[in-house]
Amino acid sequence: MKAVVHAEKTGLEGLTYREIEEMEPGAGEVRIKLKTAGLNHRDLFVLSRHQPTDPPLIIGSDGAGIIDAVGEGVTNVQVGDQVIINPGLGWKENSDAPPSGFEILGLPFHGTFAEKVVVPAENAFKKPEYLTWEEAGVLSLGALTAYRALFTRGKLKAGMKVLIPGIGSGVATLLLQFAKAAGAIVYVTSRSKEKCATALKLGADKAFDSNEDWNQALDGEKMDLVIECVGAATFNKSLEQLRPGGTIVTFGASAGDNVQINLRSFFYGQLNLLGSTMGSGEEYTEMLQFIETHQIRPVLDNMYPLDQFAKAFERMEKADQLGKIGFVIETL
Amino acid sequence: MKAVVHAEKTGLEGLTYREIEEMEPGAGEVRIKLKTAGLNHRDLFVLSRHQPTDPPLIIGSDGAGIIDAVGEGVTNVQVGDQVIINPGLGWKENSDAPPSGFEILGLPFHGTFAEKVVVPAENAFKKPEYLTWEEAGVLSLGALTAYRALFTRGKLKAGMKVLIPGIGSGVATLLLQFAKAAGAIVYVTSRSKEKCATALKLGADKAFDSNEDWNQALDGEKMDLVIECVGAATFNKSLEQLRPGGTIVTFGASAGDNVQINLRSFFYGQLNLLGSTMGSGEEYTEMLQFIETHQIRPVLDNMYPLDQFAKAFERMEKADQLGKIGFVIETL
Repeated sequence: MKAVVHAEKTGLEGLTYREIEEMEPGAGEVRIKLKTAGLNHRDLFVLSRHQPTDPPLIIGSDGAGIIDAVGEGVTNVQVGDQVIINPGLGWKENSDAPPSGFEILGLPFHGTFAEKVVVPAENAFKKPEYLTWEEAGVLSLGALTAYRALFTRGKLKAGMKVLIPGIGSGVATLLLQFAKAAGAIVYVTSRSKEKCATALKLGADKAFDSNEDWNQALDGEKMDLVIECVGAATFNKSLEQLRPGGTIVTFGASAGDNVQINLRSFFYGQLNLLGSTMGSGEEYTEMLQFIETHQIRPVLDNMYPLDQFAKAFERMEKADQLGKIGFVIETL
Repeated sequence: MKAVVHAEKTGLEGLTYREIEEMEPGAGEVRIKLKTAGLNHRDLFVLSRHQPTDPPLIIGSDGAGIIDAVGEGVTNVQVGDQVIINPGLGWKENSDAPPSGFEILGLPFHGTFAEKVVVPAENAFKKPEYLTWEEAGVLSLGALTAYRALFTRGKLKAGMKVLIPGIGSGVATLLLQFAKAAGAIVYVTSRSKEKCATALKLGADKAFDSNEDWNQALDGEKMDLVIECVGAATFNKSLEQLRPGGTIVTFGASAGDNVQINLRSFFYGQLNLLGSTMGSGEEYTEMLQFIETHQIRPVLDNMYPLDQFAKAFERMEKADQLGKIGFVIETL
């Protein structure tokens, strides 16, 4: 089968589209013939950290397709089922942190940028019928991350004021859609006028330029919750927008890892900084119910054929996208 | 009456012991003839921030004594009652942050380093009978802060592993006593061998030198909860000791305000950083019940007559104390 693999060099230059041997599902596993797959910042991160291996690693975390083989003892799905993949491996029940051994599909196990992928059967979920294959293929990692960050960690309730800096990324648009569906008042920022305009169409109550003075842009209104997936570039501005007792959830740092915090302001403000990443199988199930109830569709940016993976990565590296970038693997 | 007031200069040099006019309690207020008072880091902080006023400010937050006058409409206490003062003004019900207008006794309202003090009647609580006047006088601010930090914020449960860096201060010894009474496993650090030894006597399960390698000293054991009241000097070491999903509560920064955090490690660890300061009247009531149930007595360092206030401040500035420093105002 054909796949995008990480071989020979670290970084993007180490990626190639090539023939690779198909795998067989073991006990408790299923093989999925992929229709679509989704690109995440994590894939970029994997490329910078992973030492190329031989045989090479198939990267990619998000995908959707049809079961084409099942291993021994699999009962939850059968050949022919239309499924969507939860890329979190080994984190079933909700807990304050993943158990040891938790991994995300695409490192160290072969991922979804391929014609077929083998995953534990418990990671294959019935594809929500109202979603197109494109939408299903790009949903999982971002939607699970957004769900845990907003609800499990941020304890979002209707009427709360939420700020989402950097609205362009796939996960950020999902945060906006989820928060609005839950009845929150949602403010977003972006350096792009176009992205601000699209965010307003998606329901944002206010969208302003990330380079503006945030206090002015928010007119002194303070936030119950800030979901921070940008990192150092916006972190301290985000922190400043919290009301006393407010919460900032952080799960991304594509714009810098290291931040400085003034402890005295932090504790006088009774603030909360909560780290989050991905989520459990239980949260994945809740997330699917939530999006089905509210008929939420991920915003699609561009879809590429798998052999044009380089264009997709380039678009993400430049942060040009609004919404999810994905791959069409099998003609739909 | 005699009082320690902050006049003319900022800082310690601005403090004098002098005659000052006695106040009358207004409606809903009581006047307390003080037996004892307690010194806190906050008093040092007030001296560095407060612009001296005329008439000068009586500083001090902690105290205990006997009601000697009550204003109109006061029903919860009467003249002659033995009381202990909750120094938190205007924060009655438990909430995630104090309401606006919240103040701590001793700035901007006259405090307890005086023969008498006027406070809202709701801040006067029946003195726990098993406590001596010395113990009652030094208890409140530290015990309330420790209670909120450990229980409301840190959600301490029996069996949890707790680390308390910098065990010398009054509030740190209370943290240790409270956490042990609640059934936690408690580790502490100090730069002083003597303080480590005393902490072990107070029930600490392990006490080690703050300058040691903490990972080695803890033998790789990771913490559910760290209560951080030192600040920059220990903050990052504290953060490193958390288990995945663990919590660090911060309420003090006497050793530096500004810290650097690596966001990626923080969110991969699903960590929690929670700011805390003081507590509500509700928490004060719970704290009094808790110490009575467990017969907890604050560790007394030195008690001074009020006119020797300079010695007390000096001792605190040098961090020589183990436990609470206080004042005996009326011969007991």
